[in-house]
Amino acid sequence: MISPTMATMLCYLTCDAVVAEDEWRAIIASAVAQSFNRITVDGQASTNDTVVALANGASGVRPVGDELELLSAAIHAVCLSLAVSIVADGEGATKVIRLSVVGAADDVEAEAVARAVGNSPLIKAAFYGEDPNWGRVAQTVGQTLCEVEDTRSLAVDIDYGPLRVLNGSLPVDFDKEAKQSLRDLMASSEIDLTINLHRGKSRALLYFSDLTHQYVTFNAEYTT
Amino acid sequence: MISPTMATMLCYLTCDAVVAEDEWRAIIASAVAQSFNRITVDGQASTNDTVVALANGASGVRPVGDELELLSAAIHAVCLSLAVSIVADGEGATKVIRLSVVGAADDVEAEAVARAVGNSPLIKAAFYGEDPNWGRVAQTVGQTLCEVEDTRSLAVDIDYGPLRVLNGSLPVDFDKEAKQSLRDLMASSEIDLTINLHRGKSRALLYFSDLTHQYVTFNAEYTT
Repeated sequence: MISPTMATMLCYLTCDAVVAEDEWRAIIASAVAQSFNRITVDGQASTNDTVVALANGASGVRPVGDELELLSAAIHAVCLSLAVSIVADGEGATKVIRLSVVGAADDVEAEAVARAVGNSPLIKAAFYGEDPNWGRVAQTVGQTLCEVEDTRSLAVDIDYGPLRVLNGSLPVDFDKEAKQSLRDLMASSEIDLTINLHRGKSRALLYFSDLTHQYVTFNAEYTT
Repeated sequence: MISPTMATMLCYLTCDAVVAEDEWRAIIASAVAQSFNRITVDGQASTNDTVVALANGASGVRPVGDELELLSAAIHAVCLSLAVSIVADGEGATKVIRLSVVGAADDVEAEAVARAVGNSPLIKAAFYGEDPNWGRVAQTVGQTLCEVEDTRSLAVDIDYGPLRVLNGSLPVDFDKEAKQSLRDLMASSEIDLTINLHRGKSRALLYFSDLTHQYVTFNAEYTT
């Protein structure tokens, strides 16, 4: 669980379906892995985040096959919605960025790049300033991979929303209209950022917030 | 090299002593390792930091033995002074914190804890707010060590300057006078923070800055 500032996230999910314990555990573990464990505000893990999920069977309905899939999808959707709300509500945040790292050599690499980008104060401050600063993203990718690869040989693509700004590690030229599209995109409260490393088939998804003056205020202006 | 925001640090050291190339390289490597590589503002490595050190021998003086030690000490002192200046001057910084991690199980662990603490936006914001928030320091230690140790068994000491605030993982009671001493200490522009992990004999030193509103302004309020 990654949660803002030692805050305690207490999540209670209740459901009246009849579900076997092992099936329920599998659904919850998967839903948590893809939601609460895929967010970051400042990279600081909370000390006591909790998800409690109960299925008491009161409805007498026992979902099987496609119905169980549907229940699982619903639980996943609820968890993701709650998790993204934590980011959007995260200590002065003004934006939620959905980061997709694709084309990584393996899952560890995908995760390392995603966490480095999502926790970079420089990149987070650039989003606050609505600046599509691909240089900071490329630098963070390079810093993360410099021990496993000669970074000069990397051909990285970076897209903000549907707009590619770095193509095979080379900056894309933008005409006046495209620049305006990029400005409009960066002014949104929800932005997609995609990094393609072109090194393999692994990927990682991470939701993160911007770094704002209010974050500093929130975390500096009180005394314990 | 750890340097603020893709800034380029260009450091030129000149000296007119007669020094053999291998001796000079050893002195510079050691001095850089203990100065420029021991600072962080935001954990983002710069792309082209450089230290160029020249000894042209124009003086005709060839230091040997104790004299060479003295030259080495002088070079180390110059590098450390320059490195700490980078932190003090680092993008809105108001404080320089000298962090000593001691009692680590090995050098890798000491370095990991030091970097996690020195790059924690929460801890850095607390220093800006002049808050001796040992809870955030302890949390970061726990987050860093949780995969190698049951953190409940850790007995960590945390000292701000000469004042111990956490002793064997237990908070120290402060009377009114001690609280005032702590407040005065936290108002300083240079603060020592010491973390004793009581796990071994390894240590790491790191100089870091606080996280301020001005950092956010500096890194958000321009467009590339």
